[in-house]
Amino acid sequence: MSSTAKTKLEKSLCEWNGTIQKKGSPNNSRILRFKEGFRWSSVKTEKYKEGDRESWSSVVRMVLIGNRGESTKFSLRYFEISPKGYSSLERHRHEHVIVCIRGKGQIVINKRKFRIGYLDTVYISPDTIHQLVNPYDEPFGFFCIVDSKRDRPVVLS
Amino acid sequence: MSSTAKTKLEKSLCEWNGTIQKKGSPNNSRILRFKEGFRWSSVKTEKYKEGDRESWSSVVRMVLIGNRGESTKFSLRYFEISPKGYSSLERHRHEHVIVCIRGKGQIVINKRKFRIGYLDTVYISPDTIHQLVNPYDEPFGFFCIVDSKRDRPVVLS
Repeated sequence: MSSTAKTKLEKSLCEWNGTIQKKGSPNNSRILRFKEGFRWSSVKTEKYKEGDRESWSSVVRMVLIGNRGESTKFSLRYFEISPKGYSSLERHRHEHVIVCIRGKGQIVINKRKFRIGYLDTVYISPDTIHQLVNPYDEPFGFFCIVDSKRDRPVVLS
Repeated sequence: MSSTAKTKLEKSLCEWNGTIQKKGSPNNSRILRFKEGFRWSSVKTEKYKEGDRESWSSVVRMVLIGNRGESTKFSLRYFEISPKGYSSLERHRHEHVIVCIRGKGQIVINKRKFRIGYLDTVYISPDTIHQLVNPYDEPFGFFCIVDSKRDRPVVLS
């Protein structure tokens, strides 16, 4: 593509101002812009879990889809585990879908441990004991998609 | 991490053989390995749509989660639009969540056009007219997450 054509193409694009339809609606279309350091515009960084501080270490969560008026039957979250961190070893009826997008990590599934790398996609079936672990030197970040309505995890020791 | 420690760590990992629990179960945990050229192990490349050949061009789809016995209330698909390709301009009641993972592209939302790049995440609210377009020189690939039960899109001209 010539640079003139490229400029023309880019000039025809709309500026992004947060939401796409009118403000005030509970359910606007929106673009969450990806930012340096694996953050997204207008998405806050939260603790992995409130309470239960014993079973996990060095994990943060961000909810991209699921807590702003959407009626999707799923939530899209991003979790990041710092080097040497780990999530709770747990089990639940609901399924997990995990997509690694930053660094690499390991997943424990029923006492077996597997390495997962960039864009590897994991499906964890109901009632499967699992844990995400980062024994490496870089942050391990992944999307986790779950049903909106789901049972409470049972944390194992 | 020393190279000895690293080797020990990697040696403790299980080999990956497709599914994690016993074969024959309709609902095994599994890891879909990401492969060169934006493909995943055991995931086949399909046409974007059967029929309706007029409204779209140069799009393929892969279903990562949703057609192998999962009971999730969502499906995870990967779509890829070749340079100069585009999806149907359409509208439906169900919501779309789109995450760009390859190249960049444009999204038309209610007659406005926005550029989307790496890991930008788009939420398309119900009944919003939309279309994905690739006017660039490289493939534009994105995850699209939708509810498993959803209405049929209305294709617009």
